[in-house]
Amino acid sequence: MSGNRFGRIFSITTWGESHGPAVGVVVDGCPSGLAIAAEDIQKELDRRRPGQSRASTSRQEKDQVEILSGIFEGRTTGTPISLVVWNKDADSSAYDLLRDRPRPGHADYTYQMKYGIRDHRGGGRASARETVGRVAAGAVARKLLEEWGIHIVAYVTELGGIRAVLPPAKLMILRTQAESNAVRCPDPAAAERMLQRLEAVRKEGDSLGGMVEIVAEGVPAGLGEPVFDKLDGDLAKALMSIGAVKAVEIGAGRECAGLKGSEMNDPLIWQDGGASFESNRAGGILGGISTGEPIVCRIAVKPTPSIARPQRTVDLASGEAAEIEIKGRHDPAIPPRIVPVAEAMVALVLADHMLRQRAARL
Amino acid sequence: MSGNRFGRIFSITTWGESHGPAVGVVVDGCPSGLAIAAEDIQKELDRRRPGQSRASTSRQEKDQVEILSGIFEGRTTGTPISLVVWNKDADSSAYDLLRDRPRPGHADYTYQMKYGIRDHRGGGRASARETVGRVAAGAVARKLLEEWGIHIVAYVTELGGIRAVLPPAKLMILRTQAESNAVRCPDPAAAERMLQRLEAVRKEGDSLGGMVEIVAEGVPAGLGEPVFDKLDGDLAKALMSIGAVKAVEIGAGRECAGLKGSEMNDPLIWQDGGASFESNRAGGILGGISTGEPIVCRIAVKPTPSIARPQRTVDLASGEAAEIEIKGRHDPAIPPRIVPVAEAMVALVLADHMLRQRAARL
Amino acid sequence: MSGNRFGRIFSITTWGESHGPAVGVVVDGCPSGLAIAAEDIQKELDRRRPGQSRASTSRQEKDQVEILSGIFEGRTTGTPISLVVWNKDADSSAYDLLRDRPRPGHADYTYQMKYGIRDHRGGGRASARETVGRVAAGAVARKLLEEWGIHIVAYVTELGGIRAVLPPAKLMILRTQAESNAVRCPDPAAAERMLQRLEAVRKEGDSLGGMVEIVAEGVPAGLGEPVFDKLDGDLAKALMSIGAVKAVEIGAGRECAGLKGSEMNDPLIWQDGGASFESNRAGGILGGISTGEPIVCRIAVKPTPSIARPQRTVDLASGEAAEIEIKGRHDPAIPPRIVPVAEAMVALVLADHMLRQRAARL
Amino acid sequence: MSGNRFGRIFSITTWGESHGPAVGVVVDGCPSGLAIAAEDIQKELDRRRPGQSRASTSRQEKDQVEILSGIFEGRTTGTPISLVVWNKDADSSAYDLLRDRPRPGHADYTYQMKYGIRDHRGGGRASARETVGRVAAGAVARKLLEEWGIHIVAYVTELGGIRAVLPPAKLMILRTQAESNAVRCPDPAAAERMLQRLEAVRKEGDSLGGMVEIVAEGVPAGLGEPVFDKLDGDLAKALMSIGAVKAVEIGAGRECAGLKGSEMNDPLIWQDGGASFESNRAGGILGGISTGEPIVCRIAVKPTPSIARPQRTVDLASGEAAEIEIKGRHDPAIPPRIVPVAEAMVALVLADHMLRQRAARL
Repeated sequence: MSGNRFGRIFSITTWGESHGPAVGVVVDGCPSGLAIAAEDIQKELDRRRPGQSRASTSRQEKDQVEILSGIFEGRTTGTPISLVVWNKDADSSAYDLLRDRPRPGHADYTYQMKYGIRDHRGGGRASARETVGRVAAGAVARKLLEEWGIHIVAYVTELGGIRAVLPPAKLMILRTQAESNAVRCPDPAAAERMLQRLEAVRKEGDSLGGMVEIVAEGVPAGLGEPVFDKLDGDLAKALMSIGAVKAVEIGAGRECAGLKGSEMNDPLIWQDGGASFESNRAGGILGGISTGEPIVCRIAVKPTPSIARPQRTVDLASGEAAEIEIKGRHDPAIPPRIVPVAEAMVALVLADHMLRQRAARL
Repeated sequence: MSGNRFGRIFSITTWGESHGPAVGVVVDGCPSGLAIAAEDIQKELDRRRPGQSRASTSRQEKDQVEILSGIFEGRTTGTPISLVVWNKDADSSAYDLLRDRPRPGHADYTYQMKYGIRDHRGGGRASARETVGRVAAGAVARKLLEEWGIHIVAYVTELGGIRAVLPPAKLMILRTQAESNAVRCPDPAAAERMLQRLEAVRKEGDSLGGMVEIVAEGVPAGLGEPVFDKLDGDLAKALMSIGAVKAVEIGAGRECAGLKGSEMNDPLIWQDGGASFESNRAGGILGGISTGEPIVCRIAVKPTPSIARPQRTVDLASGEAAEIEIKGRHDPAIPPRIVPVAEAMVALVLADHMLRQRAARL
Repeated sequence: MSGNRFGRIFSITTWGESHGPAVGVVVDGCPSGLAIAAEDIQKELDRRRPGQSRASTSRQEKDQVEILSGIFEGRTTGTPISLVVWNKDADSSAYDLLRDRPRPGHADYTYQMKYGIRDHRGGGRASARETVGRVAAGAVARKLLEEWGIHIVAYVTELGGIRAVLPPAKLMILRTQAESNAVRCPDPAAAERMLQRLEAVRKEGDSLGGMVEIVAEGVPAGLGEPVFDKLDGDLAKALMSIGAVKAVEIGAGRECAGLKGSEMNDPLIWQDGGASFESNRAGGILGGISTGEPIVCRIAVKPTPSIARPQRTVDLASGEAAEIEIKGRHDPAIPPRIVPVAEAMVALVLADHMLRQRAARL
Repeated sequence: MSGNRFGRIFSITTWGESHGPAVGVVVDGCPSGLAIAAEDIQKELDRRRPGQSRASTSRQEKDQVEILSGIFEGRTTGTPISLVVWNKDADSSAYDLLRDRPRPGHADYTYQMKYGIRDHRGGGRASARETVGRVAAGAVARKLLEEWGIHIVAYVTELGGIRAVLPPAKLMILRTQAESNAVRCPDPAAAERMLQRLEAVRKEGDSLGGMVEIVAEGVPAGLGEPVFDKLDGDLAKALMSIGAVKAVEIGAGRECAGLKGSEMNDPLIWQDGGASFESNRAGGILGGISTGEPIVCRIAVKPTPSIARPQRTVDLASGEAAEIEIKGRHDPAIPPRIVPVAEAMVALVLADHMLRQRAARL
């Protein structure tokens, strides 16, 4: 009930605090017989880890996954897969000042109001570290989706107001291009400008927001449960549940507000012995059910709230106005790092709906 | 599992097809002791009903709600509240042609692919008529929220590219203004232009998209369950699950992608013996938990897919390209009619989280 | 959350009070394509209805089911199936005296303590009438199970201390024998003695308890989800949730407490190219998963609490000891009438687990 | 979906195999602010551990719990509590022979049929070791229940046909007496005979079944959700989901089948300014809702299936009849060891329903 579980059939429960002993996830409902190795999971955790580039913090997090259950002789057994990543000894003293002074743009104040108590060290449960469990579980989901020919790719399309122009390329080429630069943008020219802008903003002690697009290819028509567990409904929840996301779009998204019906509707065509769609403004989903076209989502990511400038807040202990300055190194932009997390969340939704679909027909 | 249920504690199950005998909803988990009458529900159903204005279809739907259980001597008993609205005899013959020819922008094709069978008459389960259950259940949720001083208002902020300028007015005044015109826009000048644009587009046999904003006032700090059942996550799912919605924003929403951290963060202030926020770019939610400020959501609504123009599609029976022209009267724009539905969905999320929050602390 | 829903994939929500306008159920998650007619459901409701025999009350309840959604041209569409049965105008005045005086052995007192309010007329939601929804939904589940060759039969094995001796007959023969007498006992001699004992007890204004056995044949090996949603766990909950049931047994059941391991274990044998079991003391379930042998459950049913004798209770309004005498005709024994309800509950569990099993393997 | 989660608000997910690296549990939904230490959990794990007495196996399992999340400065924070117990290096070679030869009375065959693959070492997920997670989570639930004055005690009432005679003593005295002997029976004379019988049966290479009673005191009236999530329904599932349990009774249980209504009904009395019950044949539950009287459950536990005698089975690899002899030390009776597990399961159900009840009324 307290919300740390996601998915109906392929379901995960994450746990752990930023400065606690470990973070982890239990994957329940993965079908038996899936070949999977620690490396499959580690690969995604490595993509999630902050690197050494200017676009991300220089903190070193070696996130080595341990598989504690559910896999036997290289295959899933159908029992829960417990994954754990140990936290490195963290110096929590930098957070002492924040105990009573909620950081603007963070969950400090709201956790305190909700529970009356919180682990304030490193953001506790509300830290970006919580996404370790999502990415580890997502790696299992991706492995499963690959069995069915489904692939998911995300990349940055906008950062600090600079927009990428996407070349008309295959998804896997976009991915290769995106992964080749520190901002994970498939438009090399835009990427270079994004990096310059990031560097400038970092020097000001400030941060930038941006947009990330997630595309899933190979999704068969028919996924998604009307009327509340629509595929786009579940994707919206999955993506909005990632910290810093403030908007979710499907297909034409926000833009559809300015279109006419004759401009928005995707005509159906008959091709290769089956129906498909001439365009994909629907983003691969109609009536909450997949059309067979690529699923296209977009998320707006707010600028990193931890900025190296004095900010106004309150002291909850004394009941007075206060000021804080957040120390330490923080990513000046979240979008590049959110890419593998967003992919993971989409993978979890699709894996779940692939299994749910098995019960749809007699 | 097949997705017709929404909510964890305050939960609803909707049922019914457009041209079947009835549509309805079972509300399970409403606390006992709530005073509620059929009029409370009827009032919202009347707001949902298509009116006679140019902004909506002229079909006459008298949607009289019947309460079949769960209320005794004017109060809820804690048992399920079953609500039913009978469908009028509909002429389904206009839909015969659509049996094998999926309408572009509709769920015809995807339902067929999912289930291998569908009630094609009037869109079946994927009809806008499905929202009757949402609105009826939402009326119960609203009644409950009123007990706690929570009010929800929605209105159209953009239609066919025309944007409203919101006056700095109280929420209830915005509501009164919005409800006074056929496009439900609180900016009278914009409303007039929207209506003109609608009329022009209708004559072209086309339709328009738009934006709707939903605001909830009086929501206490602390609602929302980290990390997956975040309040914004649940709102995103609730709103995206309404047909025609293609984007959901919270607070600054899409705009945050272009802001700096110093521009986005809301400073905390100490006021009247408690903490609050100087601005509300967060839209009332931080880390997935309510801040005590108004909850602000926005949705992008696509143009009505049923347009009076020939459209290209396929004939699934013959496996050939085909053309269809959709007969009958259809709203040339969905946003005005989606207003009470969006309010209902937000009410359902908030009622559920109010009850969930009761279990948060010892 | 408030407990009126059962099942994960094949799931039902029941609603309605004894003296309200109607009772009903929404079946969500039934696969599309199942051929089903109102008669399939009516047949089971007729079995549930109190008859004219001495073993059951003489009240006339014509329970005509109406299908309001989810079935199109004789087949399920995958959307929710809404079923309603209207209540006849009931005279509630006989219950006026019970408003403040809880009947011993009934839920009057506990509903009042839980909700602070209750519909006292005819037992409200806690009436045996609530089982209409279970039986109607169970009829859909049975129809589905028949597609897979699964059949469920229940019968009375003990009443008022009289135990049936089961002949070594095929399940369907046991059923025919059981349905041929008013106590639904497949042993004709025992049935006759049960009826005599019932008549004697009825004259004393008293009632009798008994045992009912439920057998499911054709269940494939592999159903049931370890470790909490074990097949026997879900069956135990399903059966214990029927009013008046005070014990649930699987296979050898209670008797196993007195056996040795060498007496209890069922040896495996190789037969017809596959493994099976020489005996079935396990009742068709090992480790919570079906073995392929018949599923065998037994329930102990308490004597009807409504007896025509003065009983001691309290008056909650005045806070004093009180006495009540329950008027009206009541079944002097519940087991014969619980038979179709128990079958329905087992059907619901098996239909759900058949669908859940589809997600078990890659 | 795959069934490793239990509870709606206070919910747990267990994971782990007998011979894997560890077993564990994630407790989600425990309210914030509860004081709890590792010792509180360790105490219950120690009670679960096989001892050195003749009544239990001599294997040494030092089950040291580690708390990985959810507790900060000695109190729960409302975030998930992750608990892990590492497995000792086990010699799995003894199980090599069992890979293709399912042990009678065990889940070997059914897991294989369900998943097509299984970790056969030490019973894998179907091992009694799986209860470590239940007991650890149950310790958290018990701590919570103590805050509300609820206490749970279980003890053996029958073993190998020997029945205890319960003295009319307070529950805590029964508990002290039960915990003072190796069979956990509160009747010292019966306990002595049980031990002798156990010793005799052990020498024969055989095992014994028995009965365990679980009593919860201090449970307020009003817990339990009609109509499917009845308190007794949830208890039945919770207890039946423990390996080796074949029957669950509430209050008079199986015995009620032989009683008359006038013998079964508990009269209500007015006492100390409130209503209560003169007797408690209902076992503290009416209509699925607690009455305020002690909750009384009983379970029938089958004899240990692992016996030191040759048993007939099949070889799934060769498709032939086979014989197995199970090596190693196994408890000749499960009831004494199931006591803390049964207490844990009842605690989990009650903690969950205490929190669910908070949402019952306006």
